[in-house]
Amino acid sequence: MMTQIRMSEYLVDRPAREIWQTTHDPVPELTDGQVAARIDYVSIDPGMTMWITDKRSYMPPVRPGDVMRAFGVAEIIESRSDNFAVGDWVTGFLGVQSHGVFNEREVRKIPVDLAAPELFLSGLGMTGYTAYFGMMDIGRPEAEETVVVSAASGAVGSIAAQLAKKAGARVIGIAGGANKCRYLTETLGLDAAIDYKSEDVGARLDALVPNHIDIYYDNVGGPILDAALTRMRYRGRIVVCGAVSQYENMAAAQGPKNYMEIVTQSIKMQGFTMRDYMHRVPEAIQVLAAGLGDGSLVCRQHVLDGLESLADGLEMLLSGANQGKLLIRVAHEEGHS
Amino acid sequence: MMTQIRMSEYLVDRPAREIWQTTHDPVPELTDGQVAARIDYVSIDPGMTMWITDKRSYMPPVRPGDVMRAFGVAEIIESRSDNFAVGDWVTGFLGVQSHGVFNEREVRKIPVDLAAPELFLSGLGMTGYTAYFGMMDIGRPEAEETVVVSAASGAVGSIAAQLAKKAGARVIGIAGGANKCRYLTETLGLDAAIDYKSEDVGARLDALVPNHIDIYYDNVGGPILDAALTRMRYRGRIVVCGAVSQYENMAAAQGPKNYMEIVTQSIKMQGFTMRDYMHRVPEAIQVLAAGLGDGSLVCRQHVLDGLESLADGLEMLLSGANQGKLLIRVAHEEGHS
Repeated sequence: MMTQIRMSEYLVDRPAREIWQTTHDPVPELTDGQVAARIDYVSIDPGMTMWITDKRSYMPPVRPGDVMRAFGVAEIIESRSDNFAVGDWVTGFLGVQSHGVFNEREVRKIPVDLAAPELFLSGLGMTGYTAYFGMMDIGRPEAEETVVVSAASGAVGSIAAQLAKKAGARVIGIAGGANKCRYLTETLGLDAAIDYKSEDVGARLDALVPNHIDIYYDNVGGPILDAALTRMRYRGRIVVCGAVSQYENMAAAQGPKNYMEIVTQSIKMQGFTMRDYMHRVPEAIQVLAAGLGDGSLVCRQHVLDGLESLADGLEMLLSGANQGKLLIRVAHEEGHS
Repeated sequence: MMTQIRMSEYLVDRPAREIWQTTHDPVPELTDGQVAARIDYVSIDPGMTMWITDKRSYMPPVRPGDVMRAFGVAEIIESRSDNFAVGDWVTGFLGVQSHGVFNEREVRKIPVDLAAPELFLSGLGMTGYTAYFGMMDIGRPEAEETVVVSAASGAVGSIAAQLAKKAGARVIGIAGGANKCRYLTETLGLDAAIDYKSEDVGARLDALVPNHIDIYYDNVGGPILDAALTRMRYRGRIVVCGAVSQYENMAAAQGPKNYMEIVTQSIKMQGFTMRDYMHRVPEAIQVLAAGLGDGSLVCRQHVLDGLESLADGLEMLLSGANQGKLLIRVAHEEGHS
């Protein structure tokens, strides 16, 4: 049997908790080119909050009655595809469900010999790759440069900040709340942290960056982008992060008010999504897995148990209560695969 | 004797006409390293309106009592510099005056064998170079691409649009008013023009660009930038123009509202100023002079007579009444140099 969390209706004016419905059904028979998989971890991402409203976005919304869309990691338990064998591990939009049947093109193998499967939803997942390519391919930090990262305790920001640090840059993270800021300096080893909830970001940047910011990795837009923009060095680089996990923040984000700075300081502002970099994912995995393996990269996960914790997870995400990448660990009875 | 137009006080709440004062003085004696020059043309640029208020800007304001700052072209009439000979032509911030004494580092020779001196204040001046590097180095139009240029009848926009056209692109210009739009299609040969004063820019872009915009050369920011941004193709390029002559428009310009588009469409938004390209000015002069010489590039000039037409010129500029790059032709009595 498979347990599935379906979205019964669009989120309009009912409380978010009430739009979920749990169903139980047998796993369907496979047709040619399909695989069946047992899903072990499901990723909870801010993008979800866009998929459950009937608004145009970077992806179509989930339709009422459908299984809720989510990234996941899973083991293949049955295969009618030449490309996947039983025992292979895969990722993709696997849905908030215990098991699923997928077309072979909907899933992608993950090298679980390099790291635990659930890491492919956090540090070794899309957010990790996004951090990697945004920072290393667009930002390109060099030793002694000053790098500022917003939402620096988040899934993308934390990896991006650590990668800049590894490259020899001086890294300042911006996050909300004393706990997150302590995490930035004490656990991640950043040079400084700014608490945007209790501090004046501009004044703190002035104090911490006597010269100019070389790279600003933007995860939030709006006033923090403005504060960074006016402090960029000539020919500075602004990386506009395209992680799905940031879309909730970014969707409402305004572009820079001080548009003239882009001109007068010859600033490059470069947006990107992983679509540009899918062909280079193996490179990212190699670098990130090595860092996670030797402890030079830290990646926190906040694991909730059971598919029905989806509603709790989304609430935590919106309130910022989670400590690390939010994942659901799916309960599977012993003996059942 | 030299005639000079001085700014008697900052523009605060008096009419702009009343802050100017004309003075007459002998040309000072030169010291070593200086040159004296007879100024033939003075450039009227929107940047001037920023220099006459006591606000921080990309350049310090003019101080009360000083000769008004302006670009100009002049012939050297006396030299105590090893780098300049009598008869050399120069450009630089020469001021709104009939003659001036300059340190050799304040002026730059112009090759008047290639074109008339005044062209070095328009098509072969900073605005021409800005159009050239912005379009050809950052935008990089290719045959069959669709390029949109705002303020396309202006000093920068008109050259930028024509360069894209020469590169084989399909070019749509945006300008204010039917006359300017006619100029774009009939004189400059652009493929289409949009009158932002009487037309809905977004709707017209939808009609004219069934697919997507490859390059948007932005001279204005604000709502027109927004309209272009939502219609950019994946990995499109937005050139954020850094011409002094555009600063009046841009100073009040807001950055894009639809900031998410930068992410989801992987858009590169690149600001620049001529500071980045000064070493490549000879390349721009060569290309632009060839185009102006063979008639494949058109550059309109709107010439006013006499230094005291400065106030008129600034009014025209602000109302958009000028037809082409505004210049003052300085009256010099025969026999005096």
